Amino acid sequence: MSTDKRLELGKKTLAQVDGTAADSVMAALQGIAPDVGKYIFEFAFGDIYNRTGLDFKQREMITITSLLTQGDTAAQLKVHIQAALNVGWTKNEIIETFIQCLPYVGFPKVLNAVNTAKQVFAKN
Amino acid sequence: MSTDKRLELGKKTLAQVDGTAADSVMAALQGIAPDVGKYIFEFAFGDIYNRTGLDFKQREMITITSLLTQGDTAAQLKVHIQAALNVGWTKNEIIETFIQCLPYVGFPKVLNAVNTAKQVFAKN
Amino acid sequence: MSTDKRLELGKKTLAQVDGTAADSVMAALQGIAPDVGKYIFEFAFGDIYNRTGLDFKQREMITITSLLTQGDTAAQLKVHIQAALNVGWTKNEIIETFIQCLPYVGFPKVLNAVNTAKQVFAKN
Amino acid sequence: MSTDKRLELGKKTLAQVDGTAADSVMAALQGIAPDVGKYIFEFAFGDIYNRTGLDFKQREMITITSLLTQGDTAAQLKVHIQAALNVGWTKNEIIETFIQCLPYVGFPKVLNAVNTAKQVFAKN
Amino acid sequence: MSTDKRLELGKKTLAQVDGTAADSVMAALQGIAPDVGKYIFEFAFGDIYNRTGLDFKQREMITITSLLTQGDTAAQLKVHIQAALNVGWTKNEIIETFIQCLPYVGFPKVLNAVNTAKQVFAKN
Amino acid sequence: MSTDKRLELGKKTLAQVDGTAADSVMAALQGIAPDVGKYIFEFAFGDIYNRTGLDFKQREMITITSLLTQGDTAAQLKVHIQAALNVGWTKNEIIETFIQCLPYVGFPKVLNAVNTAKQVFAKN
Repeated sequence: MSTDKRLELGKKTLAQVDGTAADSVMAALQGIAPDVGKYIFEFAFGDIYNRTGLDFKQREMITITSLLTQGDTAAQLKVHIQAALNVGWTKNEIIETFIQCLPYVGFPKVLNAVNTAKQVFAKN
Repeated sequence: MSTDKRLELGKKTLAQVDGTAADSVMAALQGIAPDVGKYIFEFAFGDIYNRTGLDFKQREMITITSLLTQGDTAAQLKVHIQAALNVGWTKNEIIETFIQCLPYVGFPKVLNAVNTAKQVFAKN
Repeated sequence: MSTDKRLELGKKTLAQVDGTAADSVMAALQGIAPDVGKYIFEFAFGDIYNRTGLDFKQREMITITSLLTQGDTAAQLKVHIQAALNVGWTKNEIIETFIQCLPYVGFPKVLNAVNTAKQVFAKN
Repeated sequence: MSTDKRLELGKKTLAQVDGTAADSVMAALQGIAPDVGKYIFEFAFGDIYNRTGLDFKQREMITITSLLTQGDTAAQLKVHIQAALNVGWTKNEIIETFIQCLPYVGFPKVLNAVNTAKQVFAKN
Repeated sequence: MSTDKRLELGKKTLAQVDGTAADSVMAALQGIAPDVGKYIFEFAFGDIYNRTGLDFKQREMITITSLLTQGDTAAQLKVHIQAALNVGWTKNEIIETFIQCLPYVGFPKVLNAVNTAKQVFAKN
Repeated sequence: MSTDKRLELGKKTLAQVDGTAADSVMAALQGIAPDVGKYIFEFAFGDIYNRTGLDFKQREMITITSLLTQGDTAAQLKVHIQAALNVGWTKNEIIETFIQCLPYVGFPKVLNAVNTAKQVFAKN
């Protein structure tokens, strides 16, 4: 596949998964680091999200778990909690995903993620 | 629910999910920190794994993602990759879960997890 | 001990240690993830803080050290710096706890914790 | 070297590298944890930055990489992105440093660093 | 205080706190990075451990908590669990320190620390 | 650029930078997760290392700093310390890079990296 095709596919996939949730992230990159945006399209959404083996719902569950676990990711978690709602998870299942992390990461990271979810859920 | 019931339920759930994979972990705790083992039964498996909203397969996907992301968890990942196989994930889907983490954590943590999976897969 | 007793004991212990410092955290959980609040009461404060072997002062010193070290925990650190004052640590000893972490975590995490302490100390 | 000399040397070096970028950080420490400021002067800038073997440009490249990688360091990254500009890196090279981290830490930490750089670059 | 005095004081303090537990760490640094050893003496033990405000027992409790929390520190934790025993903590209190971290970091890091303690306790 | 070209370019670049240091990593991926190896070639070495703006020496300095800082990366650090030697850094400069991280990450991560370097240096 050519780089142009990967970029195109990535843009289409990101739109399908995130809807408009990532628009401001991508816009903010334009003036300063456009290639980071290009790699998000090509690698994250063109290459990875389009793989077979897992569906978009499962991929978003993995993504929000990874973001919650690493911490300092409120901005990215906001985009992907919205994406999780877009691909069919209920608010309840998203909170349940966070609760499943409790024994593995402890309360602080889960409290942070719940707080971020609160802001996203308020608009849905 | 009484503490006795939670302990009993946790033991039953851990056996159902992990099979014998956690036996050596639990045995190692006996001489030195038995209460940590008790809390794994009561809280992690009695309280959390038994919640409704997500099934065991989804819970194990979340767990291996969280362990991969936080790092320095090879011993725990070994138990939960086995658990993921036990509850019905294929080897391919487990690797695919790790690959979905690539854009969010980078290559080193994914390489570590693949290396741990290799050891578990060799026995299955 | 029944689950009801653990919940009751946890609520009493949290009030004793944190005073009203955790009120807004617990209130924020009500509409969205009340069970996370329940586990904080039952597990963190009912089970763990009530153990023998260490007193509340020592437990809060451990807690603020762990929060400083993991990072991205300003909200939780705020609650537990207040709790540390409540159970008898002086402002000086709290700063000294942070300084003891310097050789193990470096300056950035210590600077973040000092900054959070500044906000809590201003109200005490 | 006496402690007085290390302090003096550290102050001179920090001024040379950071310019006025760290002034507010150091001022904020005065009322609450002045010794943390003293150690930043003596140890970080007096001892470490003055070592031979690497120059200031290389040292700042290492510093911004380390801050980006550990996360939850926006305040410190702001100071050291300014310092990187002061010692001769271009805006482009700073962004390129962040992009080199992509395969090792993933997108979220790089996006956070780019966002912080945007605020610093706006003033330069 | 001169650098020579700090070095001397640091060596004395490390010997007092760690006993011989750090000998192999310091020896291993000699051929490759002796200045890292010098800074451990001067900064960690000369400057920080000798501060007033907290005693050695409290400082070691903070140190093992910070090491447990950041992860990938088995080698350092081994030294400081021994140091904690040296300055007067019981095995039980050390395990209790780890258990207090459970709500803040989750089970994996606590299990790793318990496992390391087991090796140290076996020699005491 | 076509995907084939990226793969080819990545293989050439990795060989140029790492020499044979990554051979065992790549071989280990073949039986279990070949696509992770493909992405290392295409994305890490094809896309990122081939960018203009920074040279290979600077890129390896960034890489070893990022690996040291995130922790639990001994296997990857081993490959990239060898790569740093390959592209022209001296052993002394590599240790100096680790020492520059001291104020930002503390002693444990630096000690781990020095220990890994010792193993690599012994073969060079």
